[in-house]
Amino acid sequence: MTTMTPSKESGVLTDLFRRISAHSPTTENIYLERVLYDQVESVATEVPDTSYEDITLPGEHHRPAKWIMPLSASSKHAILFMHGGGYTFGSLTSHRKLAAHLAKACNTWALMVDYRLAPESPFPAAIDDCVNAYRWLLDQGFEGKHIVTAGDSCGGGLATSVPLKIARDGLPAPGAAVSLSPWYDTVGQTSESLKTNADNDVLNTVENMAKLRERYTKNGADPNDPLISALYAADNELSGLPPHWISAAGYDMLRSDSTRMANKLKQAGVEVILKVHDAQQHVFEFMAGRAPEADQSIDEIGKWVRGKIGS
Amino acid sequence: MTTMTPSKESGVLTDLFRRISAHSPTTENIYLERVLYDQVESVATEVPDTSYEDITLPGEHHRPAKWIMPLSASSKHAILFMHGGGYTFGSLTSHRKLAAHLAKACNTWALMVDYRLAPESPFPAAIDDCVNAYRWLLDQGFEGKHIVTAGDSCGGGLATSVPLKIARDGLPAPGAAVSLSPWYDTVGQTSESLKTNADNDVLNTVENMAKLRERYTKNGADPNDPLISALYAADNELSGLPPHWISAAGYDMLRSDSTRMANKLKQAGVEVILKVHDAQQHVFEFMAGRAPEADQSIDEIGKWVRGKIGS
Repeated sequence: MTTMTPSKESGVLTDLFRRISAHSPTTENIYLERVLYDQVESVATEVPDTSYEDITLPGEHHRPAKWIMPLSASSKHAILFMHGGGYTFGSLTSHRKLAAHLAKACNTWALMVDYRLAPESPFPAAIDDCVNAYRWLLDQGFEGKHIVTAGDSCGGGLATSVPLKIARDGLPAPGAAVSLSPWYDTVGQTSESLKTNADNDVLNTVENMAKLRERYTKNGADPNDPLISALYAADNELSGLPPHWISAAGYDMLRSDSTRMANKLKQAGVEVILKVHDAQQHVFEFMAGRAPEADQSIDEIGKWVRGKIGS
Repeated sequence: MTTMTPSKESGVLTDLFRRISAHSPTTENIYLERVLYDQVESVATEVPDTSYEDITLPGEHHRPAKWIMPLSASSKHAILFMHGGGYTFGSLTSHRKLAAHLAKACNTWALMVDYRLAPESPFPAAIDDCVNAYRWLLDQGFEGKHIVTAGDSCGGGLATSVPLKIARDGLPAPGAAVSLSPWYDTVGQTSESLKTNADNDVLNTVENMAKLRERYTKNGADPNDPLISALYAADNELSGLPPHWISAAGYDMLRSDSTRMANKLKQAGVEVILKVHDAQQHVFEFMAGRAPEADQSIDEIGKWVRGKIGS
C-alpha cells in the first residue's frame, strides 16, 4: 500500500491540533476546552458571495442558529449542519466557514444549529435540538427530500442518528446525509483505528474520547441506543435512511467508525459512498479554501449532493 | 450626576469579560490569552446581506486581510478597520461582526487587516502593516477622502496614529477617523480613569495594561513617540488629522484617554465628536446587533461618517 503525501498546506491543521492539545487544561475546565476548540474556524477561508443571519429557533430551549446563504444557491434546498466537538465543544463560530463551503458546493443554504452541549445537557439534548431544527425547516416550506443532514465528528454521527429519529417521529426523510470523519461508535469505542492510528492522530486520544462519552451519557443512557451510536441500529431501521456520503481521514482514530458504518449501511441496502482520504487528520475539511485535499473532498460531495437532491 | 442603567442585554459583555478574566492564565501563555480574547466575537450578531472575502495584502509581511462587503454598500468607500487587543491579541475572527456592523451603518466596505502582533512583532509592526493596507486601498482606486480609519481599544489608537503616519509619508489623508474606547496613552498610562474606574472595569487592570505596554515597546521605543501614544503628538501634527468620532465607555479604565484626546484634537483645530456612554464596559460596541446601546452608538457613527465621506 502506498501512502499519498499530504499537501504542504494541509500541515496547518496538524499544527493547530498540536497547539490545541498542548494548551488543553490538565484539570477539568470545559470553558477553556471549548475556547480552544473554537480555533478550528481559523484554518478555513471565507466563502465569497455568501451571507449569514443569526436566528433563534422556536421551541422551549430557544436554540440559536445561523443561516448560511451563498448568494447564487437554491433557496429551496438546505443543509442541516451539525457541528462536531464530541458533543461538548463547538459553536456557530467554529464551523461557520466549513458549513459555508459545503453549502456553496451543494448549491444550497445551510442552517447551523447551536444544539445544547454535554455535560450540562447530555443525550438526548443534542439530537432533540437537531430534530427540532429539522421540523422547523419543514415548517418553513423545505421539503424533506430537499434537505441534507450533514456534520463532522459527533455531528457526522448526528447526520445519521437524526434521520433515524426523524423516521421514528414519522417525519419525511431527508434527501441525503453527509458525514465527515463521523463518530459512530460513541459508546463501544471498539474501532480498530483507535489503536492503529493512535500515533498518527494528533488530536484525539482514547482517554479524551472516553471522557467525552462519559459527559454525553452521564444520565445513564442505554449504551446500545442507536440514537447515541448509530452503528448499533438494526438493519430494518437503517434501511430507511437516505443515501450517505461518508468521508474518512486516513490518520483519524475514528477512521474505522466510517468503514464499519459504511458496511452496515450497505448490508441494510442503503446507498453509501465511502471515501478514505490518505494521511489526513480528523475533519481535514476544516481546511476548506486552503488545502487541496479539503477542497477536493467538498467539491466531490457537492456534485454528489446536487445529483441526489436536485439543487 | 445620574447614571443610566445599562440594558439587560448589555450584561452579556460584562459576563464575557468576567469569564475571560477568570480563565486568563496566571503564567505567561500568549496563545491562551489570544484564544480567550477571540471570544469577543460571540457577543455580536451577524449582519444580514453582507459577504466576506479573505485576501493576502502585498508587501514583505504577506498580511492576511478580510474584505467585509454589505451588499447594498458603496464600493467606492471603505473603512480600514484595525482591531483591538492591546497590540497582542485580536484577529480577523474576533472583530469580524463588529466591523461588519460598522460598515453597514457607514454604507461602506471594510477592510480588516491582520497586523503583526506583539511581543513577536513590537512597535512599529502594527502601524507599518496598517499603513501598508492603507496604501493598498489607494492603489485599488479608493480616494483617501473616501476612507475611514477605525478601530477599538489599541485599534482606536491606530485610527489616529495611522493618519499621523500617513501624513508623514505624504499620502492623501483619510476622510474621517472613528475610535471606539481608544487606547491613546499607551506608555504614560496616566489617565485618571485608570483609578476611578478600577472597580467598574471588569476586563482591564493596571497590571495587564503595563504588561501589554512592555510587549509592544520591548524594542526600547521612544515612549513619547506619537505613533505609539497619539496623545503626545504636537498640535501642529494633530492639526492635519481628519475629523474624529470618539466613543468612550463610562466604566472603562481608558475613558479619560478619550476625553484627553478629544481636548487635544479640539485645541489643534480638529473637528471631534466625543460621546461618553454611561455605565458601559470597554468596547461595548462588541454587542452590535444585541444590545441597544451598541446599536445606537454604531447608528450615530454611521450617520456622521456618511455625512463626512459622502458614502
